[in-house]
Amino acid sequence: MIATVAFAVTGVLAVAGRGVDIFGSMVLGVATAVGGGTIRDVILGVPVFWSVDVRYLWVALGASIAAHVLRSRFSRRGVYQAMLYLDGFGAALFGIQSVSKTWNLDFGLPLAPVVLGVVTAIGGGLIRDVLAGRPTLLMSRELYAVPVMLGCIVFVAALYWLPSQRLASAVICIIAIFVLRSAAIFWHLQMPKRLVTRPDEPDSNG
Amino acid sequence: MIATVAFAVTGVLAVAGRGVDIFGSMVLGVATAVGGGTIRDVILGVPVFWSVDVRYLWVALGASIAAHVLRSRFSRRGVYQAMLYLDGFGAALFGIQSVSKTWNLDFGLPLAPVVLGVVTAIGGGLIRDVLAGRPTLLMSRELYAVPVMLGCIVFVAALYWLPSQRLASAVICIIAIFVLRSAAIFWHLQMPKRLVTRPDEPDSNG
Amino acid sequence: MIATVAFAVTGVLAVAGRGVDIFGSMVLGVATAVGGGTIRDVILGVPVFWSVDVRYLWVALGASIAAHVLRSRFSRRGVYQAMLYLDGFGAALFGIQSVSKTWNLDFGLPLAPVVLGVVTAIGGGLIRDVLAGRPTLLMSRELYAVPVMLGCIVFVAALYWLPSQRLASAVICIIAIFVLRSAAIFWHLQMPKRLVTRPDEPDSNG
Repeated sequence: MIATVAFAVTGVLAVAGRGVDIFGSMVLGVATAVGGGTIRDVILGVPVFWSVDVRYLWVALGASIAAHVLRSRFSRRGVYQAMLYLDGFGAALFGIQSVSKTWNLDFGLPLAPVVLGVVTAIGGGLIRDVLAGRPTLLMSRELYAVPVMLGCIVFVAALYWLPSQRLASAVICIIAIFVLRSAAIFWHLQMPKRLVTRPDEPDSNG
Repeated sequence: MIATVAFAVTGVLAVAGRGVDIFGSMVLGVATAVGGGTIRDVILGVPVFWSVDVRYLWVALGASIAAHVLRSRFSRRGVYQAMLYLDGFGAALFGIQSVSKTWNLDFGLPLAPVVLGVVTAIGGGLIRDVLAGRPTLLMSRELYAVPVMLGCIVFVAALYWLPSQRLASAVICIIAIFVLRSAAIFWHLQMPKRLVTRPDEPDSNG
Repeated sequence: MIATVAFAVTGVLAVAGRGVDIFGSMVLGVATAVGGGTIRDVILGVPVFWSVDVRYLWVALGASIAAHVLRSRFSRRGVYQAMLYLDGFGAALFGIQSVSKTWNLDFGLPLAPVVLGVVTAIGGGLIRDVLAGRPTLLMSRELYAVPVMLGCIVFVAALYWLPSQRLASAVICIIAIFVLRSAAIFWHLQMPKRLVTRPDEPDSNG
């Protein structure tokens, strides 16, 4: 729930500078908060999580409206930084939870749980950026999804080799993702340059 | 059906100024017409409406081709204005119909029917704008989706407190949405400025 | 499988000129390779193909990483041209296979199989372009999807009138699509101008 709030708030604040009305903030905030999990559930072929427990939708909507109205307060440096860390924690939680859900359904093991973990963590933000006309996370060198991906891989390995330690593995992976992401926020870490294509390479037409 | 035609035609005309070939018009017109309902049905976990009754697909395709070929006629001021009102009527119809469908499935009441009503009304247009590289509705101050949202809220309340008056409530809500939307078209109404974030507010990175 | 490789490789190369890190290449390559088929399966309401056979996901991921690391080699004129033809063959294969799958499910005949054939062939590329902020295929005059559409229409007609010749029809349609697409690549064929709207036509607001 707390993660849902963080996703909705950072979602609204991310686009506030573009001149969005309160309806736009509601749609973009809710899409950021529940979009990734919705894609996951649709691909898994299970009922979407916010139809099973509609409180997620209320929380996302309430947080989006609050973020829109109180955006000047949320934008204050200290508060916004706190939201960023909370957002990183939310991504960790959503990612590991998705791996667990996908694993339980015996769905495309072992690779699909990692893919759906990453999709859940970043899907909502991608939808928001596309709808708002912003460059997506994928075109930046920010270390946002890579910690989630690494954590999900480790968690899948743990589910395979240490099935009895499931809860402990999950907690450790969530903490590890959160620490990595926090370090990336704190020191403004980015992907090493040699793992990035040069913008001056010719753009192929595919 | 008439609403499907209106969605397809306005969908094609909205992107005609960007240099689209007839294939692009077909894809974008059909996506505008059936996209919102498709997202709704996929989230609800029911067969998509155009697989149950494929005539929707034929009508959307035919209207898209007609709009592409006859675009200079459709673009004439009078005809285009008529299409805009028809499109508003279509959004009202699709929204209320979606609330009804979602309510019948007992899906995430009471908030999910409103969310899916809005998604059905604007989803197709959002897909079109994203595929065509246009700024989406969410980044404008146009009063398009807000009347739909208000109408859906009132209809959900009516379904709860006046379940015996279902048909009458639906008709009243559709008319109310249509009147609000028509007023917005006629007087070029926009969202009040104090509900919009200023574009000069700093753009937070989320 | 070969088609999946071609989709992933052309997907990664298409965005390499925009400064993408290896994580972005993985997401965009995999999305290009399996995105279209995923949308098709979600709309059909059947398990997504890469959960039934997870090797597709491995192949897409491996090809994306290889394309990112070895992009300077893949970008060489000869190799890239080969990849383009392979990609055209992949689109033909995916399109006809989707028609067959949709036909078997008796899903929205006769139009839905053609629509889903085209969606499968171009859906992954559309997702990639939208996430990467590139203009989509729909806004170009490239002859990419039209051969697929024509081939799918002919195949549906063959399934209807020559149900006993199913395999032969499929092979002929795949070859026909591939020949048309190859001709388009080789001679840089484009949509005839009179089927394209003029960019100077006024942009209607819909």
